[in-house]
Amino acid sequence: MPHIDLPTDAPGIGGLFQYRPQTAVPLTQLAEVLLRGEHSLSRGERELIATYVSSLNDCGFCTRSHAAFAAAQLPGGMDLVCQVADDPDGAPVSDKMKALLEIAGAVQRGGLEVGTGHVQAAREAGATDLEIHDTVLIAAAFCMFNRYVDGLAALTPDEPALYKTMADRIVTDGYLTIAPGG
Amino acid sequence: MPHIDLPTDAPGIGGLFQYRPQTAVPLTQLAEVLLRGEHSLSRGERELIATYVSSLNDCGFCTRSHAAFAAAQLPGGMDLVCQVADDPDGAPVSDKMKALLEIAGAVQRGGLEVGTGHVQAAREAGATDLEIHDTVLIAAAFCMFNRYVDGLAALTPDEPALYKTMADRIVTDGYLTIAPGG
Repeated sequence: MPHIDLPTDAPGIGGLFQYRPQTAVPLTQLAEVLLRGEHSLSRGERELIATYVSSLNDCGFCTRSHAAFAAAQLPGGMDLVCQVADDPDGAPVSDKMKALLEIAGAVQRGGLEVGTGHVQAAREAGATDLEIHDTVLIAAAFCMFNRYVDGLAALTPDEPALYKTMADRIVTDGYLTIAPGG
Repeated sequence: MPHIDLPTDAPGIGGLFQYRPQTAVPLTQLAEVLLRGEHSLSRGERELIATYVSSLNDCGFCTRSHAAFAAAQLPGGMDLVCQVADDPDGAPVSDKMKALLEIAGAVQRGGLEVGTGHVQAAREAGATDLEIHDTVLIAAAFCMFNRYVDGLAALTPDEPALYKTMADRIVTDGYLTIAPGG
C-alpha cells in the first residue's frame, strides 16, 4: 500500500504522476530525452542501462517495466536483458556497452565511485563523451526514479501482461503521454 | 578535471547544463517546482532537505551551493544549516522538519529504507501527504543531482564568494535561468 493517498491505483510511478502533475511533466521530459531522444546508443541499449541500475537498487517496479521496454527494443529480447542484469560482463553485448554498464554500476554506488579508469576504458572501447555523459545521467536519474517509487511504496503489480502492455505503449507513444494531460 | 570535455569552466552542474541543454531544461524545471514552487514548506526548508541529502552523499558542490541557498532563505542562516547537516535530530528545527529529514535520510540510503514508521512519525508531527511526497522526491532528486555532478567530476570551486553569488542569483531569479537560453 502506498505511503500516501493516491488518486488512482495506476501502478508504480504512474500513480505518483497522477498525484503530482507539476513534477510529472519535467520527470517524463527527462525520461523522453534520455531514453528515446536521437542518439548513437539505441533506445534498447539505453533502457538496458536503466534496467541494470534499477535492478542494482532492488526496485521491482522499475526493473520489471524497463526490462520489458528494453526487451521490446533489443534483438536479444528478454533473454539478453536478464543476462545483463545478472552478469553484465559475461553478457553478449559489445565491449563499449560493458564499459558503459560498468560506469552505470559505479554511479549507482555513488558519484564519487566513478574513476578516470572507468571513463578511459569506455573511451578505449569506442564510447563518445555524449555516450559517457548520458550513461552517467541515466544511471543517476534511475537512482532518483527508483527511490521515488519505493520511497513512497508505489504499487508494484505482479502480472507480467501489465508490463508488456506498458512496453507496447512506451515503444509506440513514448514517455510524455504518461504525464497527466500528456 | 571533469571526465568529459565541457564547453565552459562554469562550476558544478552549470558546466554540465551548458554541455547538454536538452537535459538541462527538464532538470532545472524539476528543481524550480520542488524547491521554489508554491508550498507549505518554505523555500529555505526545502533547500535544507536538499543540503542534508547532498551532504550524506558527500557531494561537495551540491552541499556548498544548496547550503548557501538555504542559508540565504532561513532566519537561522548558515549556523542552522550546519547544525542540521551535522545532527538533524539535535538541531533547532520543528518536530515536523526533523521527521521529514529522517525520511530524506532513509531515501538517501535507498527507497526501500522508508518504512511506515517514518511516514507515521511525520504525519503525527503534522506533515501533510504533499510534504511527505515532496520530501521523498527532493531527496531522490538530489541522489540524482549529486551523482550527476560527481559521476562526471564536475568542477567544485573552493571560493566561498562564488557560492554566495550563486545564492543571490537563485534567490532572485530561480533555477530556470541556469539552463542555457533560460
